[in-house]
Amino acid sequence: MGKPYVIGIDIGGTNTLFGIVDARGNILYDGSIKTWDYPDIESYVFALAEGLAGLIQQTGGEGLVRGIGVGAPMGNFLSGCIENAVNLPWKGVIPLAQLIRESTYNIPVAVTNDANAAAIGEMAYGAARGMKDFIVITLGTGVGSGIVIGGNLVYGHNGFAGELGHVIMRRENGRMCGCGRPGCLEAYTSATGVARSARELLSSRADDSLLRDMDIENITSKDVYEAAMKGDRLSLEIFESTGEILGEAFADFIVFSTPEAIILCGGLAKAGDLLLNPIQRSLDKHGLSMFAGKTKLLLSQLEESNAAILGASALGWEAKG
Amino acid sequence: MGKPYVIGIDIGGTNTLFGIVDARGNILYDGSIKTWDYPDIESYVFALAEGLAGLIQQTGGEGLVRGIGVGAPMGNFLSGCIENAVNLPWKGVIPLAQLIRESTYNIPVAVTNDANAAAIGEMAYGAARGMKDFIVITLGTGVGSGIVIGGNLVYGHNGFAGELGHVIMRRENGRMCGCGRPGCLEAYTSATGVARSARELLSSRADDSLLRDMDIENITSKDVYEAAMKGDRLSLEIFESTGEILGEAFADFIVFSTPEAIILCGGLAKAGDLLLNPIQRSLDKHGLSMFAGKTKLLLSQLEESNAAILGASALGWEAKG
Repeated sequence: MGKPYVIGIDIGGTNTLFGIVDARGNILYDGSIKTWDYPDIESYVFALAEGLAGLIQQTGGEGLVRGIGVGAPMGNFLSGCIENAVNLPWKGVIPLAQLIRESTYNIPVAVTNDANAAAIGEMAYGAARGMKDFIVITLGTGVGSGIVIGGNLVYGHNGFAGELGHVIMRRENGRMCGCGRPGCLEAYTSATGVARSARELLSSRADDSLLRDMDIENITSKDVYEAAMKGDRLSLEIFESTGEILGEAFADFIVFSTPEAIILCGGLAKAGDLLLNPIQRSLDKHGLSMFAGKTKLLLSQLEESNAAILGASALGWEAKG
Repeated sequence: MGKPYVIGIDIGGTNTLFGIVDARGNILYDGSIKTWDYPDIESYVFALAEGLAGLIQQTGGEGLVRGIGVGAPMGNFLSGCIENAVNLPWKGVIPLAQLIRESTYNIPVAVTNDANAAAIGEMAYGAARGMKDFIVITLGTGVGSGIVIGGNLVYGHNGFAGELGHVIMRRENGRMCGCGRPGCLEAYTSATGVARSARELLSSRADDSLLRDMDIENITSKDVYEAAMKGDRLSLEIFESTGEILGEAFADFIVFSTPEAIILCGGLAKAGDLLLNPIQRSLDKHGLSMFAGKTKLLLSQLEESNAAILGASALGWEAKG
C-alpha cells in the first residue's frame, strides 16, 4: 500500500484549482479548469472529475485517496451544498458534495466556504499549527472569516456561521456593502474597500499624492500599497484608517471568543506591517483591558498560490463516508 | 447507594447562594451567606464550607455529591480562579476551586462566571434543552453572556471569552461604560443603562411622562417597565431604543456564530414582549438576509430565584477530579 492522500478543490469565481496533497501538506499534482466555462453544474462536475481522474491515476489510484475537500463561495459544510452563490454560474442550491462523490469513485467529499477552508489550512500547515482557538480573516475582494474554537470550525446552526465581513462597523452614514446593508467591515477593509477609500480621499481632498498620476477609477489596493511603500502620505493614511477599523472589529471579536491569534490572509494581507501596525495600535486603543495582549496578530504562513488547495485538502481528511 | 447530587454555588456581589441539586434539576436543600461579611477569603470559604457541610449531611453524606459548580464574577473555568473581580471583597487572583475543594471533602470543583453558569443552566434545565448552539444574554446590573457552540461553552484562549456586554455599539459620542470605554452594549441595555436612558430623556425633553412623578435620580428599569405597561410614551420609547440596540448587536452575534437561539435572562428580561418585540423588529431590519429567521429569540425558562444555583450546579457534573 502507498501513502494516503487527499484532494483539495478550490472553486473560485474565475478558476477552479485542484490538487492531490499528502499528509505533510505537499501538493503532488495539480490542475485547474475555468469555472465559467461550464454554465450547467453537470458539465462542470464532469470536467472536474475528468481532471481529478488523471491526477488520481498518476498518484497510484483511487484506493489511496482518503477524502476530497472543497472550498467554494457559500459552501455549506452541514448540507454539502453550494447555496445561492452570486459569483458562480449555477443558481440555487447545488448538492455539490453528492455530485462530486458520484462522479469520483465514491470518495467521501466535504464542502465548506473558502474562508473556512483557509482556516483549516492554517491549522494543518500554517500559522495556526498547534492552536485550538483562532480566527482567520481573509482580506480579498470581500472580507471572509473562518473561526476555530476548541479545535473545531464554527459552522453555526445553519452551516454558514463566521461571516465576520458583515459585522457593522459604521452605524451612521456607513458605506453601502454588497450585502445591501450600510457600514459592514467588508465595505471598508476588503481590497475593494481600500481602493474605494483611495477614490473617496482623492476626490474629496486636494493634497498631492502619487495616486493622482493614475486612472482614478481603476486604482487597486496594490497601487495604494505601492504608493504607501514609497512614503505617499495619502496612501499611508488609507492603511492607517483601514487598520483602525480592523482593530475596532478585532476588539469585538476578542470579547466574543478570545482567540489565541487572529490570522490575516488574502491579497491585502501582503501589505504586512503596513497593515498589522495600525491594527495593533487600534486594538491597543479600543480593546477591553482584561484582554490586552491575549491575542496575537499574525500573517498567513501558507504560500498564496498553494493556500486554497491546501486549505480545501485539509478538510478532505474529515470527509465522512 | 442513594442517587447522585451536585452542589451549585452562586457568588453575587451581595449574597452567596448555594444548594444541593439532583440530576433532574430539583433543588433539595439550599442556604446562603452574605458575601461581604467575609473580607478575607479564608473566613469566607470556612463559612461557605460550614453551610455546605450541613446540607451535605442532610442529603446523605458527601459520597453522593459528584461535583461542585461555582458561578462568580470573573470566575475563570480554565484556572479555577476568581481574577480581579471589582464587586467582590477579595482582591487579585483567588484560587477558589482549590480552596473550596480543600475544605469540602475533596469534592471536585469547577468555577465559571455567572453568565456562563446561566447558559449551562438553560442547556440543562431551561430554554436551551436539546440545543447545541445558543447564546444566553443576561440583562442585569451589567450585560453578560454565555456562548455555547457545538454543545460546549466558549471559554476562549484565556478562560474569559463571551463578554458580549462589551461589544461597541456606538462609536461616535458613545456612553461611557464601567469598563472605561465609550459605547459598549452594556452602557445602553443593562437594567442600569435603561434607567440611564430614562434620566437622559427626562432631562433633555419636556414631554409628559409618568416617570416625572418619581425621584429622577432613583428611577430603575422596573419603574420604566411599569410606566411602559401603563402606556407611557416616553417609557415605551426607551424599550424601543433599547431593543433596537440589542437587535443591532444580535445581528452581529449571528454573523459570528449563527446560534439556534438567543436567550434573554436577568431582571430586564422580565419585560418580556415589551423588549422582545423591538429586538425582533431591529433584527429584521439590521440582520444579514442570509440569516433571516435562523435564530430564535427566547426568554429564560428558569425561575429567577433558582436560576443561579441551578446554573452553577449543572457545571458541577463537569467538575473533574
